[in-house]
Amino acid sequence: MTIRYPNGKKYQPVQKQKKPKKKDYTFGNRGKTLEDELNESNEYYLAHHLAVVHKKPIPIQIVQVDYPGRSRAVIREAYYRTPSTTDYNGVYKGRYIDFEAKETKNTTSFPLKNVHIHQVEHMKQVDEQQGITFLLVSFQQLDRYFLLPFPQLYDFWSRMESGGRKSITLEEFEKNAVEIRAGFTPRIPYLDAVDSYLVNKESEDGARGE
Amino acid sequence: MTIRYPNGKKYQPVQKQKKPKKKDYTFGNRGKTLEDELNESNEYYLAHHLAVVHKKPIPIQIVQVDYPGRSRAVIREAYYRTPSTTDYNGVYKGRYIDFEAKETKNTTSFPLKNVHIHQVEHMKQVDEQQGITFLLVSFQQLDRYFLLPFPQLYDFWSRMESGGRKSITLEEFEKNAVEIRAGFTPRIPYLDAVDSYLVNKESEDGARGE
Repeated sequence: MTIRYPNGKKYQPVQKQKKPKKKDYTFGNRGKTLEDELNESNEYYLAHHLAVVHKKPIPIQIVQVDYPGRSRAVIREAYYRTPSTTDYNGVYKGRYIDFEAKETKNTTSFPLKNVHIHQVEHMKQVDEQQGITFLLVSFQQLDRYFLLPFPQLYDFWSRMESGGRKSITLEEFEKNAVEIRAGFTPRIPYLDAVDSYLVNKESEDGARGE
Repeated sequence: MTIRYPNGKKYQPVQKQKKPKKKDYTFGNRGKTLEDELNESNEYYLAHHLAVVHKKPIPIQIVQVDYPGRSRAVIREAYYRTPSTTDYNGVYKGRYIDFEAKETKNTTSFPLKNVHIHQVEHMKQVDEQQGITFLLVSFQQLDRYFLLPFPQLYDFWSRMESGGRKSITLEEFEKNAVEIRAGFTPRIPYLDAVDSYLVNKESEDGARGE
């Protein structure tokens, strides 16, 4: 189906402006950040009609804007704001998907200080509304990726709140998360992990008679 | 359930910074923009555990950032980018919701030039992924609000593409959209309109044997 502008011109999706990449030449990600890898994976999913997931823009508080003549407006003073939600959300088979992605150079555990409390609060709200919500963690040095569903994340968060350890160990990821087998196209096939999670969840819900 | 910071301090949701309001003292919206009204409605839905819907931040391309001493980073040069999606999305009873909100001072029709082609393209992708997607239109002067589901919006868009009229008349909204009865809390109870739409849609899908 072709979409056209009011003047009859054919619509061509705009190429996204690429932002400069942070260089990091570990073997695993070959110079790509987790954000790059996820954006490419999301573009793959979109192009193949498998899911519509986008990264949210960074929230900015704009203080001063110049309008120089006929040129486009220039923002001259603005500040980063703390995001009140996670970074990624969208739709997969009609269901709402919402996740935060974090990478760590640590090789034995993931420090919970990388997750903001307002993100945990947001994921809790999404979970209560039956959305699919999770933390996606990249252990950069190990080239391993995990999808940790919110209920499990919340257990580890609560352990920390009650004075327990402030991180989740790799072994705990192996036991409680779904491992994502990094590939080529898409680089991070996280929807496969979502499928596994949902199959397990539904069989558990079924066993509980829900 | 109380959420605590790693240091044991209780989490208090941050009050959103209010941006200066565009003044518009028509009777209907009493100085509030549609964005304000929708943000308040979304806060109401969130507080009452009915839905988790947020406005996406405006996408900005950042060119230069200053880091003045110990103060926070100041963005010194940045530009507005064209959004590639709609403004609002979130989750309602497990389902993905995605919409664009537009207001018009026009009293007899809604000009389609207010909708960007990339937003139509995005809504089409969401619709194909079985998300709930629609255009929310406020006729400011009339104090009337409509939820126009994407399939109907797409019909009007296609009419324009094939050389037909470049707007949707008020009568066409009355016939093809679900009217939202503006109230007090929430100001714009658009989830009621979503419910009506879903009931109709499911009975139609049922009739088609889907």
